Amino acid sequence: MIDRLIEKIEALQNPTVVGLDPRLNYVPRAIREKNYELYGKTPKAAAKAFLEFNKGIIDGIYDLVPAVKPQIAMYEQYGSEGIQAYIDTIGYAKEKGLLIIGDIKRSDIASTAEAYADGHIGRVKVEEESYSIYGEDTITLNPYLGYDSIEPYVGHCKTYDKGLFILVKTSNSNSGEIQDLDVGGEKLYERVGKLVHQWGQSLVGKRGYSSIGAVVGATHPHQAEGLRSIMPKTYFLVPGYGAQGAKAEDLKGYFNRDGLGAIINSSRGIIAAYQREAYQSKYKEEEFALAARAAVLDMKKDLQKIL
Amino acid sequence: MIDRLIEKIEALQNPTVVGLDPRLNYVPRAIREKNYELYGKTPKAAAKAFLEFNKGIIDGIYDLVPAVKPQIAMYEQYGSEGIQAYIDTIGYAKEKGLLIIGDIKRSDIASTAEAYADGHIGRVKVEEESYSIYGEDTITLNPYLGYDSIEPYVGHCKTYDKGLFILVKTSNSNSGEIQDLDVGGEKLYERVGKLVHQWGQSLVGKRGYSSIGAVVGATHPHQAEGLRSIMPKTYFLVPGYGAQGAKAEDLKGYFNRDGLGAIINSSRGIIAAYQREAYQSKYKEEEFALAARAAVLDMKKDLQKIL
Repeated sequence: MIDRLIEKIEALQNPTVVGLDPRLNYVPRAIREKNYELYGKTPKAAAKAFLEFNKGIIDGIYDLVPAVKPQIAMYEQYGSEGIQAYIDTIGYAKEKGLLIIGDIKRSDIASTAEAYADGHIGRVKVEEESYSIYGEDTITLNPYLGYDSIEPYVGHCKTYDKGLFILVKTSNSNSGEIQDLDVGGEKLYERVGKLVHQWGQSLVGKRGYSSIGAVVGATHPHQAEGLRSIMPKTYFLVPGYGAQGAKAEDLKGYFNRDGLGAIINSSRGIIAAYQREAYQSKYKEEEFALAARAAVLDMKKDLQKIL
Repeated sequence: MIDRLIEKIEALQNPTVVGLDPRLNYVPRAIREKNYELYGKTPKAAAKAFLEFNKGIIDGIYDLVPAVKPQIAMYEQYGSEGIQAYIDTIGYAKEKGLLIIGDIKRSDIASTAEAYADGHIGRVKVEEESYSIYGEDTITLNPYLGYDSIEPYVGHCKTYDKGLFILVKTSNSNSGEIQDLDVGGEKLYERVGKLVHQWGQSLVGKRGYSSIGAVVGATHPHQAEGLRSIMPKTYFLVPGYGAQGAKAEDLKGYFNRDGLGAIINSSRGIIAAYQREAYQSKYKEEEFALAARAAVLDMKKDLQKIL
């Protein structure tokens, strides 16, 4: 998987992921109203509006970025209709040639992890039939349970050419409460980083990077530099740019000298760009996809300053 | 929430949770075949078969146990139809008066946690309308991201009378890889236990226990005794009895002297009891619910030895 990601990043000269984390107040009124007319003000209408909104965003950005990262929580909250919108968003983005990073942050014991792994990055069996259900290319996972909770996914990465990004140092302000605890002279997140590096050894691609990557928040540039040296060939998925406060200058240490090693996510800053001061005067609400495209191009330019 | 749970445990004299973690090979052939005829050998058929199977199990055990614990992974793997079966299972179990522990083990930053919290234990808004979507009474969460990732759920626990069980020491064999790391003279899981205890202080019920509980695996009796003294008034949700190898004698230290403080989960051992040697000769495949009932009564008797 990691080779496919790197190939796309290089071809597009852009290490940006667009986070597809819709909220109803990001969705233009016309799309909302249309779906309320069809389905009432229901969870189904919200889910259908998300899908329509996402398709617009994807149409606006698919030729500029290597990947999108739908956050499953935004869909899951609306129940089965929401999950269907998540699945249909993935399907549409794949048709457009995008790689999919499913932000699911799952964690469970091995026998349960198998079910998540089958559904998200493998195939589920119904007697002699088998189905691809979610179809993400890579997913995020939480490491708290240790390696046997990760192993079923690693097997699927090999079988189905998929990848993982495992939480190492998250972008939220309380991330240090557990992740920064001192464990024998190093921080817990550093120890987890070493484990992730080790877990990834069996999945190293032709460019030397592993298909098992790490989530390292953009809000911790100093820690990221340390992690970069602990795990030089682990790809970082970096949330927190833009709306969460991090700027391009903060992100230099997340990359290697080859200009690779990190992929930077922006969600609200792109998908709700039409609501931002910088774009409001240029784009009308119905031009939300054009605004998203402009925001991606601006982010690309911003990141190129440090690459 | 915790008061409702304790009331039911005392009324039934039974601290057992039945884990509703269906797999197709647990579902009697007749139920599977019927649903394949209706829907083909599809994810939808699997989901419908799970729901029918669960209803049978619930009918067999609802008057004996305080709660059921559906494991969302088993349903989520089948996509939106699977999620609908999870939701419908919860609805049916609630009609029968059972409390629901949603085993979802979610973890994410605050703004995302809000979406999970709204969907699972709160209400989601669609403009001026609001909906209860999943309707669990309590859910499991992963603590790796720290308190701001838990806080949105705590608010909902207060507003909607709900509860949480946060992973402290899990039952899997690699749980020690991260959870047992030494952090300044204590184990990480002990530090997490202290945090969970602290996070629960604002949700203490009339019996002195908090609605914020802890997941403590049945496979670590020695560690559990230590945790019991660190967090005396935190309820433990204990997976790992039966199929994962723990026995009643191992569980004494999980309880307090008042006979409270722990609720013990068994999944496969109950829901697939009809396939176990001990019950096979007495119950036919179509009597799977009666076998589950017998297994619950046997587990109750087993646990009463230590209470």
